[in-house]
Amino acid sequence: MSAPPNKQEQEETLTFPSSHAALIDPYLPTLSPEKENEDRWEKMNGKVYLTLTYAHSLDAALSLSPGVRTALSGRLSKAMTHYLRARHDAILVGVGTAVADDPGLNSRVRLADCSTRQPRPVVLDPRGRWAFGAESKVVRLAAEGKGLGPWVLVREGAVIDEGRRKILERVGGGFMFVPVGTEGRFQWGDVLRVLGREGVRSVMVEGGGEVINSLLAADKNGLVDSVIVTIAPTWLGQGGVVVSPPRVEGPNGGPPQQVRLADVRWCPMGDDVVLCGRIAK
Amino acid sequence: MSAPPNKQEQEETLTFPSSHAALIDPYLPTLSPEKENEDRWEKMNGKVYLTLTYAHSLDAALSLSPGVRTALSGRLSKAMTHYLRARHDAILVGVGTAVADDPGLNSRVRLADCSTRQPRPVVLDPRGRWAFGAESKVVRLAAEGKGLGPWVLVREGAVIDEGRRKILERVGGGFMFVPVGTEGRFQWGDVLRVLGREGVRSVMVEGGGEVINSLLAADKNGLVDSVIVTIAPTWLGQGGVVVSPPRVEGPNGGPPQQVRLADVRWCPMGDDVVLCGRIAK
Repeated sequence: MSAPPNKQEQEETLTFPSSHAALIDPYLPTLSPEKENEDRWEKMNGKVYLTLTYAHSLDAALSLSPGVRTALSGRLSKAMTHYLRARHDAILVGVGTAVADDPGLNSRVRLADCSTRQPRPVVLDPRGRWAFGAESKVVRLAAEGKGLGPWVLVREGAVIDEGRRKILERVGGGFMFVPVGTEGRFQWGDVLRVLGREGVRSVMVEGGGEVINSLLAADKNGLVDSVIVTIAPTWLGQGGVVVSPPRVEGPNGGPPQQVRLADVRWCPMGDDVVLCGRIAK
Repeated sequence: MSAPPNKQEQEETLTFPSSHAALIDPYLPTLSPEKENEDRWEKMNGKVYLTLTYAHSLDAALSLSPGVRTALSGRLSKAMTHYLRARHDAILVGVGTAVADDPGLNSRVRLADCSTRQPRPVVLDPRGRWAFGAESKVVRLAAEGKGLGPWVLVREGAVIDEGRRKILERVGGGFMFVPVGTEGRFQWGDVLRVLGREGVRSVMVEGGGEVINSLLAADKNGLVDSVIVTIAPTWLGQGGVVVSPPRVEGPNGGPPQQVRLADVRWCPMGDDVVLCGRIAK
């Protein structure tokens, strides 16, 4: 485990070699002129392209324990993450990640034409747990023009703190309302519908464990268009926050349904490997 | 998950392409004439070369649950396992694997010179739990000349069943005695010493979960010379038998000590990836 990055490291510009990008690109939403993109969107009945991506240890742990930011992957795979962010309209995390990591959720990669492109940060926060302020990293970066203002998705009927609403709106973000089910959770279909209505055509889901596991659970598979997982050659040991979907019983008491990837590509990147695939139907 | 292999599949001869072998070979014990090997052994103070190898899912599971044999990896990585077996003097598993899987523990790969080479099957069974018989696969294969007779390592002072002793000796195997600690477990140093005394210069540890996790635990690292892990692009889901070492507290209440691999190589093989490395000191 490397030391936590210092501020300078956190803000430098990254480059991601085009030879590596060429390996990943087939798993990303198409870059196309706006009109063409909207025509495709109509044809796909308004399906938001969803890329699930995260980095974990050999023992499938995202971090040592909930709320502990754990450096895992190397420089090249980190640059890839920022490249992926530039290739999606939005980047989505659960409230646990927002609270624990104070993430920037912007892209620091310079693309082939030397431009940068920022995704919309989206935080799923049905119960309004995220006590952000003007000093929160994602808000600060938006204020500095280094990222977009975040959208915070809360449950329909939630009471909104007026000060927080202003903080978001001042940087071009805002609260959005999504219905919740009986368990107090959002349904993925509702989340994607709200984002689609706001013009989002592609979203990258980055974490944390609960969000990833719920997407991988067998009944949600139709939503995920591609999966990009970075694996670092280390074991965090028992007790970490692990990516492992809940089991879904097989038909007639058979073995549990397994989630398998098809159209698989493994790309070694430095000491890490990046796995690209699509969930097999 | 593919269907369990039928008998014909279980007994066919495998080939492992030399192009792939060349990627793995730097992580294997040296092939050298007997005299040269013994000179090296003296210089290494009698250190048995230990390769830790296994296959697991993305969520680090060896199987769906204890005792459930779970097909995970593809044809090529399976051929690699048999190649690895041919490149070691012994192959070692814990009693849980012997009981659950009824494994063959032989090598079915044809080497570059068209020969085959069999490792010595070793089963760690401190409490004498393994109720094998003449029909057990490893015994049957030895009787048919397709493998070597197994060595069963039991605790010093264990009472040996006379019928079982004969079954082993008839196929060139036998019981061996190893001291146990206060917890009733073998110490790895003792196990390797007993094997070394019998002429074993290299051993491949193949499973199961308990054996692998105890070897990965930080205090045991000096014993492992290389690690070869196959990862299959599937999730078995929560509740599997997982490779994740117990945590060892860091000095002065710091974060837990992490086990990391150095000298890393990732080799895509079919839909799987094979990770080779050495435990970083």
